[in-house]
Amino acid sequence: MQPQPISIVKSFAEGRWHTPAANLQSVASALTGAVVAQTSSDGLDFGAMVSFARRVGGPALRAMTFRERAAMLKALAQAVMARKEELYALAVATGATRSDNAIDIEGGAGTLFSYASKGRRELPDDQLWIDGEPEPLGRGGSFVGQHVLSPRHGVAVHINAFNFPVWGMLEKLGPTWLAGMPAIVKPAQATGYVSEACVQLLLDTGLLPEGALQLVSGSAGDLLDHLGGQDVVAFTGSAATAQKLQNHSVIAREAVRFTAERDSLNASILGPDAEPGSPEFDLFVREVVREMTVKAGQKCTAIRRALVPSSLIDDVQDAVSARLAKIVVGDPAVEGVRMGALVSRAQRDDVRARVTELAAEARLVHGSLSDVALTGDGLESGAFLSPLLLRADDPGSASLIHEVEAFGPVATLMPYRDLDDAVMLANRGKGSLVMSVFTHDAAVARDVTLGAGAFHGRILLADRDSAGESTGHGSPLPVLVHGGPGRAGGGEELGGLRGVKHYMQRTALQGSPALLSKVVRQQLPGAPIVEGDRHPFRLTFTEIEPGYSVRTAPRTVTLADIEQFAHFTGDTFYAHMDEEAATANPLFGGRVAHGYLILAFAAGLFVDPAPGPVLANYGLENLRFVQPLKPGEAMQAVLTCKSKVLKTDEMGEVRWNVRVTNQDGDLVATYDLLTMNALV
Amino acid sequence: MQPQPISIVKSFAEGRWHTPAANLQSVASALTGAVVAQTSSDGLDFGAMVSFARRVGGPALRAMTFRERAAMLKALAQAVMARKEELYALAVATGATRSDNAIDIEGGAGTLFSYASKGRRELPDDQLWIDGEPEPLGRGGSFVGQHVLSPRHGVAVHINAFNFPVWGMLEKLGPTWLAGMPAIVKPAQATGYVSEACVQLLLDTGLLPEGALQLVSGSAGDLLDHLGGQDVVAFTGSAATAQKLQNHSVIAREAVRFTAERDSLNASILGPDAEPGSPEFDLFVREVVREMTVKAGQKCTAIRRALVPSSLIDDVQDAVSARLAKIVVGDPAVEGVRMGALVSRAQRDDVRARVTELAAEARLVHGSLSDVALTGDGLESGAFLSPLLLRADDPGSASLIHEVEAFGPVATLMPYRDLDDAVMLANRGKGSLVMSVFTHDAAVARDVTLGAGAFHGRILLADRDSAGESTGHGSPLPVLVHGGPGRAGGGEELGGLRGVKHYMQRTALQGSPALLSKVVRQQLPGAPIVEGDRHPFRLTFTEIEPGYSVRTAPRTVTLADIEQFAHFTGDTFYAHMDEEAATANPLFGGRVAHGYLILAFAAGLFVDPAPGPVLANYGLENLRFVQPLKPGEAMQAVLTCKSKVLKTDEMGEVRWNVRVTNQDGDLVATYDLLTMNALV
Repeated sequence: MQPQPISIVKSFAEGRWHTPAANLQSVASALTGAVVAQTSSDGLDFGAMVSFARRVGGPALRAMTFRERAAMLKALAQAVMARKEELYALAVATGATRSDNAIDIEGGAGTLFSYASKGRRELPDDQLWIDGEPEPLGRGGSFVGQHVLSPRHGVAVHINAFNFPVWGMLEKLGPTWLAGMPAIVKPAQATGYVSEACVQLLLDTGLLPEGALQLVSGSAGDLLDHLGGQDVVAFTGSAATAQKLQNHSVIAREAVRFTAERDSLNASILGPDAEPGSPEFDLFVREVVREMTVKAGQKCTAIRRALVPSSLIDDVQDAVSARLAKIVVGDPAVEGVRMGALVSRAQRDDVRARVTELAAEARLVHGSLSDVALTGDGLESGAFLSPLLLRADDPGSASLIHEVEAFGPVATLMPYRDLDDAVMLANRGKGSLVMSVFTHDAAVARDVTLGAGAFHGRILLADRDSAGESTGHGSPLPVLVHGGPGRAGGGEELGGLRGVKHYMQRTALQGSPALLSKVVRQQLPGAPIVEGDRHPFRLTFTEIEPGYSVRTAPRTVTLADIEQFAHFTGDTFYAHMDEEAATANPLFGGRVAHGYLILAFAAGLFVDPAPGPVLANYGLENLRFVQPLKPGEAMQAVLTCKSKVLKTDEMGEVRWNVRVTNQDGDLVATYDLLTMNALV
Repeated sequence: MQPQPISIVKSFAEGRWHTPAANLQSVASALTGAVVAQTSSDGLDFGAMVSFARRVGGPALRAMTFRERAAMLKALAQAVMARKEELYALAVATGATRSDNAIDIEGGAGTLFSYASKGRRELPDDQLWIDGEPEPLGRGGSFVGQHVLSPRHGVAVHINAFNFPVWGMLEKLGPTWLAGMPAIVKPAQATGYVSEACVQLLLDTGLLPEGALQLVSGSAGDLLDHLGGQDVVAFTGSAATAQKLQNHSVIAREAVRFTAERDSLNASILGPDAEPGSPEFDLFVREVVREMTVKAGQKCTAIRRALVPSSLIDDVQDAVSARLAKIVVGDPAVEGVRMGALVSRAQRDDVRARVTELAAEARLVHGSLSDVALTGDGLESGAFLSPLLLRADDPGSASLIHEVEAFGPVATLMPYRDLDDAVMLANRGKGSLVMSVFTHDAAVARDVTLGAGAFHGRILLADRDSAGESTGHGSPLPVLVHGGPGRAGGGEELGGLRGVKHYMQRTALQGSPALLSKVVRQQLPGAPIVEGDRHPFRLTFTEIEPGYSVRTAPRTVTLADIEQFAHFTGDTFYAHMDEEAATANPLFGGRVAHGYLILAFAAGLFVDPAPGPVLANYGLENLRFVQPLKPGEAMQAVLTCKSKVLKTDEMGEVRWNVRVTNQDGDLVATYDLLTMNALV
């Protein structure tokens, strides 16, 4: 193995790199035991860092719109991908295989890409994010409510785990920056040198506003003492550390928003229908082995408890053991090696201690606590461990197997009597990040979801149909929530735009529709409309403003119109064609115009035929036919610009509310029409 | 005054009323000082109560659907209204006026009504609540995600404040029960006798499942020690108590979900545009006085800091003082009395102490700490206090006025230089439940929202247009979030269905569309469809199931069709009528069929004309025209049942996905069609 030079891991504070001079702690290569890095946060002024983030980083990020922040995230993700080999090279010393590191590095970039995409497609080109529908607060319509989200004015402190130095950092930074908050990142010391390189890479893009990112390499010192009610602490790691942080006096006193994602005793259930020979049986066995060996089992989402029908436990044990026997452990640089080392010998010692503890309730049925055959040279001082399969035959009476986590290549096999028993055993973990069920029986899947849903942040319902594309039990995905109740810490991250809201404050705005519409830059129901000289379809995307409106001429809908439309389109539904049957209908009381006839006539009334900025009517939302239009009645439409969203450099979407009324002014139909408009 | 008999306030534990025998604490009438109640939780087994809720109440509530729980809430609200006079009669001794008590009692019932209505209209007749849209997780469409919410399996512990013994209880119970969780309620001792009566009233309906509600009258003992990761603690009250509870070791250790709503230093800003004589000036003055005197200022949402342009501070002080001078304080039973007593003499002593503290930075400009003119007899030992207006002329250099809360009829007037200064001063409260701004200038409203939104859970933007219907600065509403960051506790309650989610667990389900569709009982994109012998429109609401589908015959759309449609409807948009102009359009590249023609022809293809279970097509959602259909091309539609929702006893809404394709199978348009179907 090539010796890696020893690096002094720097912090990035108040816009400058800071090299520590004292209290250096050594980090050893997981493969060789040789020192590869030295780390310390000595000399950092944590109060000044917090203040710098609030004073410099926050305002700069808040001045950007969501779209601008999304564009920044995309460019940052591209930068990570462009220089990913630098990160792979460093990450070798963490003991992980190349495919483990791909999860970390490319998975991290993928999370940024996902947030960039969500932000571009779903968030406004503005600083305020409208949350939910307007709420009428008075009968007269002069007082309404509208929730909005705005970025918190503090700093997000991210305290990360050692196992994913890149992904673990980026999966928190993506939502934080998209929300508009600056961050102080504190990676774990054991792999912080990889995070440091990634921070350097991000800063090198020149895209991050000053103060948006600071890095603490080493201990967090008195960082938490400086936090307040606009700040957020997001922690990933062990239950013990989470508890210590959450009990810090500042958290409750200042109501600092705190979220924890703690490793948990995740379970996987082999469904009662999944007999040996079924695809689900094989998928289950493969997944248990994969979860034990990927990242040497050092994943907060790994399967720790494998629950199988009691009649099948021997079959499963044999199948899992046979697969484990083929796992080659050693230097990941050597062809054929499937599992590397644990992150450190201290971590290995801890896993051994936990397995020894578990031995009171479970026996070791595969692997050895002391011996492991290694492939590769110079690995004598590495942190290697054999995969260890345990088996507990009386899991209902046991407690340690549901509580004690060995954070390494370790899982415990246990039998269940029936599905209720399986659900009960799964829930004995007191909350987890993820559970999986291998079943092709929808009733089993539904029962497990109802019985165990409240205990798990994610449930993989795995079967033959999804196997080809499944990302597996252990993979958090940016569009799905990551985090779980109880033992898993009670937090929630990711989940698409849900994850962004954790860094924002929801505020209920109340006021008149006129005032609120100007504040949120959308036309709310009841706000005054503006009728100008020009037809709204003659205004470009740039010119049109919410509230701009046109009222059409009236048009009488005759029985002949209805009959012509019916015969032309083929829609001869009795409510349009048969007076007697239509009268018997509880909603109509006589023949009525087709809904689509009303839509088409409305378009005929408001469409402006000549070429202009409106390129197409490309969609429609929230259509409700409120009351029928009868033959001889006259319809009229009011079309009002509701909001607009830039889509490309040349065009944007304009949303129009259309209200169709009858000759008495009663509402017949209401809908939102979407047009694509040229910018100029 | 009529002396009220002394009642021993009971607890309701494990399905039985429990009368305490020891450690009784006396509660005095706020008006007369006579003892009206004695309270103690002596003898309660808190561990057994928690276990009873989890074992008996939780399963019973979870067995109900959201709709059934909503119906229960409505009946409970009706029961409160039917017996409200019993509560009014008891509440006299709390010192509040009849209109104060209306906020509490009828406001409480109104909150239950609101949740009943939201639940009935927006939640499914099922145990699982689908959260958000399905997420595609693989390119091939065989692996998708869907978030769902399920009720947590623990107990909700509600620790309430003294000021609203009914509303404070019901605003937490509504969302809790709608979610499907049982509750243990611990009211404040000072007014818990009113809560006890309300609990009796709720139990008398016989509608609550056993274990759904338990009541702790008196101290909470070791209740928190028994909680775990499926439980929720929701607290309303002082910052000091919130901090103590949140720091209880069980909260972090077990990751108990904890939410706090703490009283805060709420601000109100008189806008720079609101000159004396303007409607907003008068509205502001009236609101400051109202917030000081309603409930004798004992509201966590009351205006504590009134910020006015420095040039207007004397005008405001004069106007507020003049109005305060007209407030009659005394026995609310006497005609003309506008303000009653504080809840207790201890509370009055506390307010006096806080005002004395504030005197270091603000001077008293109206009212007296020691004297108050009282209307009514026998009030000598009551807990009365005069409204107290303070004024601080240098609020930027001050700190106590932004930190110390006098929880009584007290507000501090302070000047600001410009709007930035006003926002900065408002935010000096470090987070509040609500802020208000009195302005008729939309730019002011927007700047305040951007500058201060992150610090406040609610912002009232008050002006002349909404004055007639405004519910005012201090009123939380069931459809708007209640709670704020930082000093306000960092929690969130109410906000319509948002408030229900605090008692549920979000879980990301992953799997094949087929399996997930069965679990969530909705047809997800990509799930297999079922084509039966009968046309789907011939199936009743009861018979139709998600996935049931029909594929129509194809229909060629000719140029003649397009021209006929254009002339008939009047929609002669150039993209349909002018080949040259349509070719120049970047989206079409030649003449295309009208979108509404495609919709109408699709209906003509799938509508089944004779009377049957489908009563009407009453709406349409998510319509997107994906690619144009050109003259001579053939369209075809597939209509698939997506989901169904019962609406009345006779009919329900069926949602159909429609996919229109061309002769090559390419998607032309997709939308959801809503029909109203007869049950049988």
